[in-house]
Amino acid sequence: MFKKVLIANRGEIAVRIIRALRELNVKSVAIYSTADADAQYVKLADEAICVGGPQPADSYLNMQNIVSAAVLTGAEAIHPGYGFLSENADFAELCETCHITFIGPKFETIALMGNKANARIQMQSGNVPVVPGSNGFLADEADALSVAESVGYPVMLKAAAGGGGKGIRRVTSANELSAAYQAATKEAQLSFGDQRMYLEKIVSPAKHIEVQVFADQVGHVVAFPERDCSLQRKQQKVLELSPCPIMTSEERATVEQIAVQAAKTIGYQNTGTIEFLMDENHQFYFMEMNTRIQVEHPITEAVTGIDLVKEQVRVAAGLPLSFEQADVQIHGFAVEARVNAEDPSLDFMPQAGRVKQLKLPGGPGIRVDSGIHSGDLISPFYDSMVVKLIAHADTYAEALAKLSEALTEFELDGIASSQSFLLALLADATVQAGTATTNYVTDQFMPNFMAQVTQEVS
Amino acid sequence: MFKKVLIANRGEIAVRIIRALRELNVKSVAIYSTADADAQYVKLADEAICVGGPQPADSYLNMQNIVSAAVLTGAEAIHPGYGFLSENADFAELCETCHITFIGPKFETIALMGNKANARIQMQSGNVPVVPGSNGFLADEADALSVAESVGYPVMLKAAAGGGGKGIRRVTSANELSAAYQAATKEAQLSFGDQRMYLEKIVSPAKHIEVQVFADQVGHVVAFPERDCSLQRKQQKVLELSPCPIMTSEERATVEQIAVQAAKTIGYQNTGTIEFLMDENHQFYFMEMNTRIQVEHPITEAVTGIDLVKEQVRVAAGLPLSFEQADVQIHGFAVEARVNAEDPSLDFMPQAGRVKQLKLPGGPGIRVDSGIHSGDLISPFYDSMVVKLIAHADTYAEALAKLSEALTEFELDGIASSQSFLLALLADATVQAGTATTNYVTDQFMPNFMAQVTQEVS
Repeated sequence: MFKKVLIANRGEIAVRIIRALRELNVKSVAIYSTADADAQYVKLADEAICVGGPQPADSYLNMQNIVSAAVLTGAEAIHPGYGFLSENADFAELCETCHITFIGPKFETIALMGNKANARIQMQSGNVPVVPGSNGFLADEADALSVAESVGYPVMLKAAAGGGGKGIRRVTSANELSAAYQAATKEAQLSFGDQRMYLEKIVSPAKHIEVQVFADQVGHVVAFPERDCSLQRKQQKVLELSPCPIMTSEERATVEQIAVQAAKTIGYQNTGTIEFLMDENHQFYFMEMNTRIQVEHPITEAVTGIDLVKEQVRVAAGLPLSFEQADVQIHGFAVEARVNAEDPSLDFMPQAGRVKQLKLPGGPGIRVDSGIHSGDLISPFYDSMVVKLIAHADTYAEALAKLSEALTEFELDGIASSQSFLLALLADATVQAGTATTNYVTDQFMPNFMAQVTQEVS
Repeated sequence: MFKKVLIANRGEIAVRIIRALRELNVKSVAIYSTADADAQYVKLADEAICVGGPQPADSYLNMQNIVSAAVLTGAEAIHPGYGFLSENADFAELCETCHITFIGPKFETIALMGNKANARIQMQSGNVPVVPGSNGFLADEADALSVAESVGYPVMLKAAAGGGGKGIRRVTSANELSAAYQAATKEAQLSFGDQRMYLEKIVSPAKHIEVQVFADQVGHVVAFPERDCSLQRKQQKVLELSPCPIMTSEERATVEQIAVQAAKTIGYQNTGTIEFLMDENHQFYFMEMNTRIQVEHPITEAVTGIDLVKEQVRVAAGLPLSFEQADVQIHGFAVEARVNAEDPSLDFMPQAGRVKQLKLPGGPGIRVDSGIHSGDLISPFYDSMVVKLIAHADTYAEALAKLSEALTEFELDGIASSQSFLLALLADATVQAGTATTNYVTDQFMPNFMAQVTQEVS
């Protein structure tokens, strides 16, 4: 086991990783920007080292400074958390070059899954069902037209090197395709220096179903019960469920088997999550793979009783998985709410400022993962998610009720938060039925919610 | 199910009951003394009503006012929590007279178990092993001498109507007996208006092992995995474990069977806990029964996944138990620490005052039951226990490590607390071995701990 691990992240996930390291008797090194000098995770870590200014590029994305910090403090490994450098193949490679263990998959795997067109090709080669579309890169505009005709409109043109919504165009008919292709390739070239495109049919309505997998260095691969992350606002998950309330155990076995197959196809190591779309017929289509721990991992920990972050560290240290597939059993349901410092009445504008008072809920079945305490400053430089509340109960309905109760108790004074939005979601009939698809929040829930918010404000 | 329930208690257990009621869709009525007007549980309840002044006798022990509050607010039932009126048969009878459901056993059962000599007689009649001693009340001093000789010294003379340490004398040899008997009967007469005595052999060294039972109104009785509450300072439990780290599953089955037998013997209803001494040969002896929910119930909820407070309300409403014995399975280990507002360097003197800042720990496997938040006033009138931290993990060692980590993160600024004492206990080799008996903390741990505290202070 490592003696010391550096955490290349901040906020609640840094706190989460410090807790895991403590239980493993591993010393933790926090890094922080000048804006985070007083953050809770900095106080909790065994050591802390400033790596730069408030802008992410200067600190949490500053590879050289972070690796230097690891070398300086004698950390043998780096846990990247999620976001920032967690899916940056160059960073993982730099760690390897400097003989520091990157707690995650091999850098080649990160690079492979980072290119979405290549990921499709790889998965197809492993007989993993992908969203109908091109076989790898599109040759040209004529190829795009031909593929679109064969899979049927609407389709999505996507930059292979894509991310952050750049180089993406929705195309609803053949006569829109030429202009969209030209615009998307140009944008892709500008954004990524790579104009290669691929094309996918738009599967809708669909649920976002994801399966976390864990693989050790000696060939074991285990899949975890799925998470239903269909409740999204502007591509951001807001409320996550596990297991999916409307999937059967046969469907669960199917998607887990596909996920294991996907992980084996690319020789995956450590943990990662394979995101699928599940259509109305409950068919699964590979969308992409996240090669890191995810924000919503606590709901999986709740229903399985397995500590996924500790396991990441163990596996990175070369230990075999501490569980087998048969050990992964589902106990009840878990739901997570991401509480963001953002104001619903101002179109969810991120908020910064001093937390006057933070009252955290508790009691049976409630888990709190927070990066802040009363009196802390919420900085404008980073993600607005400040607290995660997780409820675990016997049934889906009870888990929703428990989370709703916890959110009602929750108080974040001094900063506007998404609390009211989350409470409204938990009270929504479609959410309670467990049937919401990825468009539900944006297309159906938000108009009603915003009308109500506007009414309250006026 | 009830529509509205009044909570005849305060602090963390009132919060705990409010949470359970919310999940059951039952409205909650809090009662409070003038000292508790700003307490968290008062804010969380659907309604709140002041029942008197700060002194417990004027408010939380004021039966008439409490029952009037229930009538006034239309509450159909009263949950007494623990302490205060929870084991007061007169109060339970008053509730019945006023057609209010007392959430607990029948008042006759409370009275029966409240008289410790009668409880012994009942248990003996049901073939439940009791601590060797008198068969019911002692006839006179000569009888006491004769029983003491037969069971062997040291023995304890106890007032049958006893409680709070009154009318109790330790007797180590025959020539001490006469004086002790005279003194104890006199004190018992003065304290309880009842000079009847009984006698028990002192079983030592022994572990305090307790088994919670649940019985519905249609004859089902279920036992829960034992709790090991041997870690006590001045008869107060400080750290509770479940299951007992050094008991075998055969021993567990034995003590559970005895507990079910005990509950059936007295026609018990709702939940209660049967306290046993377990001697060096792992033989169990009935000590007494607590006819209410206990402070340490969360560790049982953690290892079984069953919500005991919700079940109390359900059963009191006439519903059958929602689980059978076979549903009660043990998952891992749980440990609870009671954080008291008391200063170890001042011989654990209770502390009152304003909480400047409260930082609660979180993360996987950590449950927090708190009656306070940052900025709250801790009153000098009530029990000094302010927060319970519960850790749940796969193994006993992991649960201790997790609790230790949570306690390290915990911060209660502005008020001295037992945090350092609890952390020292968690780091103690005997505690970690799980072998501590009821005298361990007082006789072996405290001298070393106090020497260290004194050294730090000087």
